[in-house]
Amino acid sequence: MNGIPEVVIQRLPLYLRTLEALDEDGLVVVSSQELGDSLQVTPAQIRKDLSYFGRFGKQGRGYRVRDLVRELRRILGLGQEWEMVLVGMGRLGWAVASYGGFAQHGFQVVACFDNDPALVGKAVGPLLIQDDSTLAATVRERGVGIGIVAVPVDAAQQVVDQLVACGVRGILSYAPIVPRVPPHVWVQNIDPVVALQAMTYHLSQRKAPRAAGRRAV
Amino acid sequence: MNGIPEVVIQRLPLYLRTLEALDEDGLVVVSSQELGDSLQVTPAQIRKDLSYFGRFGKQGRGYRVRDLVRELRRILGLGQEWEMVLVGMGRLGWAVASYGGFAQHGFQVVACFDNDPALVGKAVGPLLIQDDSTLAATVRERGVGIGIVAVPVDAAQQVVDQLVACGVRGILSYAPIVPRVPPHVWVQNIDPVVALQAMTYHLSQRKAPRAAGRRAV
Repeated sequence: MNGIPEVVIQRLPLYLRTLEALDEDGLVVVSSQELGDSLQVTPAQIRKDLSYFGRFGKQGRGYRVRDLVRELRRILGLGQEWEMVLVGMGRLGWAVASYGGFAQHGFQVVACFDNDPALVGKAVGPLLIQDDSTLAATVRERGVGIGIVAVPVDAAQQVVDQLVACGVRGILSYAPIVPRVPPHVWVQNIDPVVALQAMTYHLSQRKAPRAAGRRAV
Repeated sequence: MNGIPEVVIQRLPLYLRTLEALDEDGLVVVSSQELGDSLQVTPAQIRKDLSYFGRFGKQGRGYRVRDLVRELRRILGLGQEWEMVLVGMGRLGWAVASYGGFAQHGFQVVACFDNDPALVGKAVGPLLIQDDSTLAATVRERGVGIGIVAVPVDAAQQVVDQLVACGVRGILSYAPIVPRVPPHVWVQNIDPVVALQAMTYHLSQRKAPRAAGRRAV
């Protein structure tokens, strides 16, 4: 948006994660060099990425860790709790539902769904697995903004369509497809094969990769 | 590498996936417009991305699907089978080990490990879960190139260090850390929170996102 490259947006959560860890360690000020070392990106990259969003830190004085955490959280829209529904409660869905990392970052799975009668009614932490037929009512009633898709590939587009139809604006998809969505819906795919195929590009190059480009989410 | 932006590399597997699907459907030639429609990126973006790697397709005649599939596979280093070891056999590790999508794309989990005696010896498909203590010997013996890290966050850096020490050059990490690795090792992180935080940036913007920037891996 506003001409900010998507690749920059995708890096901000990594900056945030590292800065939060530094804050927990009690660090008050961090230089872009130190931050770059932690993230294995160049200091110049960090300064350039942050410059899209205003002026942070003072020349030669580094960034105040807690201020930058607060600014990044604001930029990323993390000042609110984000409710999510999860569809597909196979092994993967179960692992996602049980993941302890969401809550501390302001994300919450508020309902989970499957169409397998053998799973419906089972408890996953504080939630009971609901039948797919109750998805639309739950999403609409609570105004849930984000849907997580953990169903098999053949069912994925249909579940995405269902989620979009009941008002979800963000889709986190674990299915190995590029789902079709209307323009107001944002999709993030999580696909190990895609990640591996980008990795093998680099492993196949003769020369060692440069430090600056050495990771991706 | 060679000045090719990492964001372009990360898009190539998505192009490949879509082209493979079109090939299966029997399509012989595809225009960048049609390809863009399938992927929800602009045709200009596709042409620009591919131009980094040479000339594909003819002006106004589109791309020959099968030729472009072959070229992308070559560029991405997919002409060989890639062996992987998997460390951490909790729910997530189990879901990863059971994932049917690796084999068809030339990736194979050849061994999986956990340090929990209750898990060691259990069968996961054709594999038996091995004790962590056998990791180094297995990786070295087979010359495995890629390690998948599915252990809890507190153990992640240590497992990464172990994998790197026994010669793994690529790490696919599900742990919510930015692992420290030497320059010759490539890391891809798979982290739903990072993906969600990039998504909420867009969901928090007032205007609907542009079609061209609407997705990320």
